[in-house]
Amino acid sequence: MPERIYNFSPGPATLPYSVLQEAAVDIVNFKDSGMGLIELSHRSKLFMDVADETEALLRELLNIPSNYKLLFLQGGASSQFFMVPMNLLQHDQKATYLNTGVWAKKAIQEAQLFGKVEVAYSSEDITYRRVPKDDEYTVSSDSQYLHFVSNNTIYGTQYPDMPDKTVMLVADMSSDILSRPFDVSKFGIVYAGAQKNMGPAGVTIVIIREDLLDKVGDRVPTMLKYKTHAEKDSMFNTPPCFALYCVGRVLNWLKNFGGVAAIEKINREKAAVLYEAIDSMEMYRGHAEKESRSLMNVTFNLPTPELEARFIREAAAVGLDGLKGHRSVGGCRASIYNAFPREGVEKLVSFMADFAQQNQ
Amino acid sequence: MPERIYNFSPGPATLPYSVLQEAAVDIVNFKDSGMGLIELSHRSKLFMDVADETEALLRELLNIPSNYKLLFLQGGASSQFFMVPMNLLQHDQKATYLNTGVWAKKAIQEAQLFGKVEVAYSSEDITYRRVPKDDEYTVSSDSQYLHFVSNNTIYGTQYPDMPDKTVMLVADMSSDILSRPFDVSKFGIVYAGAQKNMGPAGVTIVIIREDLLDKVGDRVPTMLKYKTHAEKDSMFNTPPCFALYCVGRVLNWLKNFGGVAAIEKINREKAAVLYEAIDSMEMYRGHAEKESRSLMNVTFNLPTPELEARFIREAAAVGLDGLKGHRSVGGCRASIYNAFPREGVEKLVSFMADFAQQNQ
Repeated sequence: MPERIYNFSPGPATLPYSVLQEAAVDIVNFKDSGMGLIELSHRSKLFMDVADETEALLRELLNIPSNYKLLFLQGGASSQFFMVPMNLLQHDQKATYLNTGVWAKKAIQEAQLFGKVEVAYSSEDITYRRVPKDDEYTVSSDSQYLHFVSNNTIYGTQYPDMPDKTVMLVADMSSDILSRPFDVSKFGIVYAGAQKNMGPAGVTIVIIREDLLDKVGDRVPTMLKYKTHAEKDSMFNTPPCFALYCVGRVLNWLKNFGGVAAIEKINREKAAVLYEAIDSMEMYRGHAEKESRSLMNVTFNLPTPELEARFIREAAAVGLDGLKGHRSVGGCRASIYNAFPREGVEKLVSFMADFAQQNQ
Repeated sequence: MPERIYNFSPGPATLPYSVLQEAAVDIVNFKDSGMGLIELSHRSKLFMDVADETEALLRELLNIPSNYKLLFLQGGASSQFFMVPMNLLQHDQKATYLNTGVWAKKAIQEAQLFGKVEVAYSSEDITYRRVPKDDEYTVSSDSQYLHFVSNNTIYGTQYPDMPDKTVMLVADMSSDILSRPFDVSKFGIVYAGAQKNMGPAGVTIVIIREDLLDKVGDRVPTMLKYKTHAEKDSMFNTPPCFALYCVGRVLNWLKNFGGVAAIEKINREKAAVLYEAIDSMEMYRGHAEKESRSLMNVTFNLPTPELEARFIREAAAVGLDGLKGHRSVGGCRASIYNAFPREGVEKLVSFMADFAQQNQ
């Protein structure tokens, strides 16, 4: 294989090559300290500077208001599925959830352990092909928050705009954070695993409005209270140092690129090229409804599973890797997060045209 | 600074240099795949092989019986403080704990949320200078397990032998796992954060006897049940891939070194050299009682805080870094885990002699 192929993996996913090269140097000898990055005490000045810079960059890039805490936790979005209701919900209180995929559904199941859950919308019966518009569901007035998954990796759907409701929003943004600007102040909590748009697996970002930190009950274990981590700037215990460092380098790359608005423009262009190819050729059929199409994960089918298997195999052979769809829906999926280069999308589209012609 | 100094940090801590060099290559292009290690899907064959090899190495090196599951989790030992009682203890059941330090005490506090806790021994009133012998405490016959911290990083104490009681053992071995052989079959659960003897921060090893997986109640969140992770071979959600990979490389290094018995011999030699220096010079005084001395963390004091500060500063200037004791006890601490080279210990001892002479 060449030094670098195009990796369409849904996550962990392709990262900026410059970040990998920086990490390769720092891991052996960080800033000429004579110690590797992953050997540094998390309480050393060298590492505290890394953590501080990472936080400052994320605050700047997402324009996070000062009354929000930024936490670097472990356990993935899957741990946030229970931590959110464990911290925000009393047993007799209600929260509203939108069921737009496997991850949204898992979040619902965990919330049911802690309070009353209202599922205001579900697209489960149509293989999660779409996300709802604001006027397609209602939120009870006594609901504590509205939880949704902003981008559904498996199905290739995404809310074109964040829900506009009077209730406080809570979102899993694991697969589209930093891909487009959004207004943090509408949210109580935003959380995201890093391994799609921000860095490697192993760190989870939580952005939480400060006044929510005190809602948690006494019987919650120390490590599961957001307040514990907020009070210690995510250094209550040893953080996942390497993943946190990588997030900082990816954010630095994004800032140099021009920030979130600049990358959104490229993301829209990349997705448009790919959807245009799907819509213009008989061979391909998009999975998601057009108005719900994701800019991050482009899902499509070919006429038969046999053709899909051949497509995925032949693409991999020319350096277009990771195009197999999630096992729960099959087909093909091209994940084109922030760091995925436009040239890779163009090469895929060219391959799609060739493949369609050869398999008419 | 030179390419490499001696890093006495208590964790994250020094790692084998060869592992850092391997990681630097793999992070950019893993096994000539054209993708970096941290970009690989955790479900790809490339990464599954990494996970499988890591598990096989740990099973071999610790001689883990086949009726034990090996889990790679997140959240550090601090998360195990509550996960252990959450999974093993009913509200009316009792567990026994030994209070030999800050971490042991935190484990006790979390366990009190879930059941009855019997603290059978505490050295808190003597600044945790020692750990108990078997005949210094009793365990109630109705206790579900005996929890202890095998090595207490902050105070430099360690159980010379694992407790020998009829009750099932549960241990936090974060700071001495893989440093000496032990009999896994005496334990219900062994857990350890990786960042001292196994790799970088970000992954926690849990070794659990299979029959214990079913003790957990229905109301426990999915991610907090050991059973969830055991059933999916730690791939229920995205694991901390990079940290897991590094653990595999460290284990490979240890295997090539000769395994746990071989490293124990070196660990005993390194510690003996250092304790001999402490005991033979007027300037230095060991913190831990002799019979409780740790092979991993050597804690000592100088006559005054001013001399300690000068010692730490002058040592750092000659490439002996990270000797400052934990803020809760002060003084000095030399952490000399498996990967810490013997030459570094010899250089420290030589520095100690020079310093003592110059500051008589």
